Amino acid sequence: MRATLLYAADDVRVENVADPKIQDPSDAVVRIVLSCICGSDLWPYKSLPRTDNPRHMGHEFLGVVEETGSEVHTLKRGDVVVAPFVYSDNTCAYCREGLHTSCLHGGQWGVNGVDGRQGEATRVPYADGTLVKLPVSEDSELLPDLLTLSDILCTGYHAARTAGVTRGDSVTVIGDGAVGLAAVISAKLLGAEQIILMGRHQTRTDLGRDFGATDVVAERGENGIAKVRELTGGEGTRKVLECVGLKDAIEQSFGVVRDGGTISRVGAPQFTDVPFGFGDFLRNITLTGGVAPARAYIEELMPHILNREIQPGRVFDRVLALEEIADGYRAMNDRAALKVIIRP
Amino acid sequence: MRATLLYAADDVRVENVADPKIQDPSDAVVRIVLSCICGSDLWPYKSLPRTDNPRHMGHEFLGVVEETGSEVHTLKRGDVVVAPFVYSDNTCAYCREGLHTSCLHGGQWGVNGVDGRQGEATRVPYADGTLVKLPVSEDSELLPDLLTLSDILCTGYHAARTAGVTRGDSVTVIGDGAVGLAAVISAKLLGAEQIILMGRHQTRTDLGRDFGATDVVAERGENGIAKVRELTGGEGTRKVLECVGLKDAIEQSFGVVRDGGTISRVGAPQFTDVPFGFGDFLRNITLTGGVAPARAYIEELMPHILNREIQPGRVFDRVLALEEIADGYRAMNDRAALKVIIRP
Repeated sequence: MRATLLYAADDVRVENVADPKIQDPSDAVVRIVLSCICGSDLWPYKSLPRTDNPRHMGHEFLGVVEETGSEVHTLKRGDVVVAPFVYSDNTCAYCREGLHTSCLHGGQWGVNGVDGRQGEATRVPYADGTLVKLPVSEDSELLPDLLTLSDILCTGYHAARTAGVTRGDSVTVIGDGAVGLAAVISAKLLGAEQIILMGRHQTRTDLGRDFGATDVVAERGENGIAKVRELTGGEGTRKVLECVGLKDAIEQSFGVVRDGGTISRVGAPQFTDVPFGFGDFLRNITLTGGVAPARAYIEELMPHILNREIQPGRVFDRVLALEEIADGYRAMNDRAALKVIIRP
Repeated sequence: MRATLLYAADDVRVENVADPKIQDPSDAVVRIVLSCICGSDLWPYKSLPRTDNPRHMGHEFLGVVEETGSEVHTLKRGDVVVAPFVYSDNTCAYCREGLHTSCLHGGQWGVNGVDGRQGEATRVPYADGTLVKLPVSEDSELLPDLLTLSDILCTGYHAARTAGVTRGDSVTVIGDGAVGLAAVISAKLLGAEQIILMGRHQTRTDLGRDFGATDVVAERGENGIAKVRELTGGEGTRKVLECVGLKDAIEQSFGVVRDGGTISRVGAPQFTDVPFGFGDFLRNITLTGGVAPARAYIEELMPHILNREIQPGRVFDRVLALEEIADGYRAMNDRAALKVIIRP
C-alpha cells in the first residue's frame, strides 16, 4: 500500500510499504477514509536529520474495518471507526481511570512496527480498546467533524477539563491553531462565560469567534498580557489553556492567569524548565494538562457533533489526495493552511 | 515592649520597640501568649545582609485581645485568639473564595509598620477578618496545638487539599520538618490509606509514624525514588506533598508521583525554574499548591484539635522565653530543635 514517510526535514514522500496484516489476535486492519496532518507532525518536518530509516507519519484517522483478529469482539468488517492518536487496551488500571496515554499496553502509531496513519490502511493494536464505532456511513458529511475526535477536539477538551472550566468561568486560550480553536469549542461546551482567544491570524481568530471566543487579543508578550488584564478588571482569567508548547506561551500563561487560577497546557512543551518560582507560588497558580487521553473523551464528545451543536471540522481548510501530502505539510508549515485533510 | 529583630544573618536580638497602638478603626491590639519560630524564618536568619533597619521577626502567634478599634465588631477585650500568618479582610472576592493570601487589603506581619509576632504584643490590621476566637482560656493545655493553626497545620493541610487527597489515596510527603509532619496529619484526616514520609531524622519520622505515616523512606534522590516505587508496585503515589522548597525536593516529587498524579508544593521555592518538560507532560502530572491561605482552614481544623483527634502541637520540642529566642533560632538552624515555642 501507499503511505507517508519522512526522510529528513522538508523531505516527505509517499511510497509503497508492506500491506498491514493481523499480527496479534486483538488487531484489526482498517482501510483509512480520512487522515490529516497534525501541528505536532511539523516538529519532525522542520527538524528531522536525514535518515535511511524513514519515519512513518500520521496519527489521526477514521476508516472502515476490513479484517479483525480472533480476539476482537466489538467490531466487524464494514464498521466505520475513529481512533485516538495513541492506541490503548481500554482495560488496564490507567485506562479505567481515563488516562489512556499511560496505558500499560498502549503505544504510538508509526513506531515499533505499527503503521503511521497517513496511508491507505493500517493495523490497529488492541482494536476493541482503541477503535470507537461511528454511527454514520463512510460518505457522511460529518466525517471531517468526527475526524477531530482523533486528536484536536479531544486535546482542546483535555485542556478545558483538566483546567476545571465550569459554568460562568473566565478562560484565556493561547494559540489560534487547530487545538486552540478546539479549546475554545471545549470551554464553551463547559459553560465558560468569557473566552479570550490570543492569536494573530485573523482568519483563525474569526473562526474562534464563531466557535465562542468572546474576545480576541492579537498582541503577544507584555502587551498581550496587559490587554487580557484590561479585559478582566486587572485580574486575569481563572483558567488558561496553553495550546502552543513554546516557552513564550507558557510565560504568557502565567501573565494572564488570575491568582488561585489554573493553567492547563496541551501544546507539547519544546522546553525542559518551566519558569514557576516564588512569585507564582505566592499566587497559588496550578499547572496541569499534558498529552490528551483522547480515547477517554470520544464517546462524551461525539453526540455534540452528531447533533450539530459543534462543528470542529471547520478547522480543516484544505483537502488533498495522499499523493499530494507534501504540499499539505508545506502549506501548514507556511501557515497557508490551518489543517489539512488527506483522502487516501 | 520587647520584640525580636534580625540585624544580619545569625544576629537575632530582643530589643525595646514602640508599643503597638490602634491606628486604624479595624485594628486590634493583642497581647501575645505564644509565638514560635518558623522554618521560613531561617532563610533570612541564614542570609540577611547586615542592616541598620532590622527586620521584625515572627508571623505565628496566639494571644489575648487588649484593645479594639471602633470598627471591630466580632471581638472584645479578653478574647483568646489565633491569627494566620498573613492578615486579610476576609471579605474581598479572593477571601470569599478562600484565597486569603491574595486578599486585596491583606499583607505580611513585620513590614509596613505592622509588628512582627515574636514579641510581647502586636497590632492586628483587619482584626475581624484576621483573628479567630479560640474557645479556650489562656492557660489551656491545648494552646500549643492551637498555635499550629497559625501556619504549619494549615500549610500542611493546604498541601493535602490542593493535591486533592481523598479517602483511600496514596500519598508521599517529602520533608520531615514541622510542615511535612502537619502534611502527614492532614493526609490522614482526609482519609489517605498509604502515607509515605520521606525524611532522615528519626525522631521526626517516628513522630510522623505516630501522626499516621505508614512508611518512612530515609533515602534521597534516585535511591529514595526507587524505594517509594518499590512500596507502590512500581507506580509511585497519586499525590505528593512537597514540604521543603528546594530543587532536589521538587525533582524527587516528579520521581515518586504516579502518572496522572498531582504534586502540591507548600515549601517556599528557593529556585525560579521547575524541571517539568516533555517527559512529565506525557505523564499528565499536575503541579499545584502555593502559600497557604491559613485563614481559610482554621475553623475547619480547630474541632479536630479541640476533640483531641489530632495533636499537631507535638512538633514543638522546646519552649523558650522571649529573651532566649536567639538560642531557639540557633537550635532550629542546627536541627537540634524541630520547632520552638516562644513565651513572651
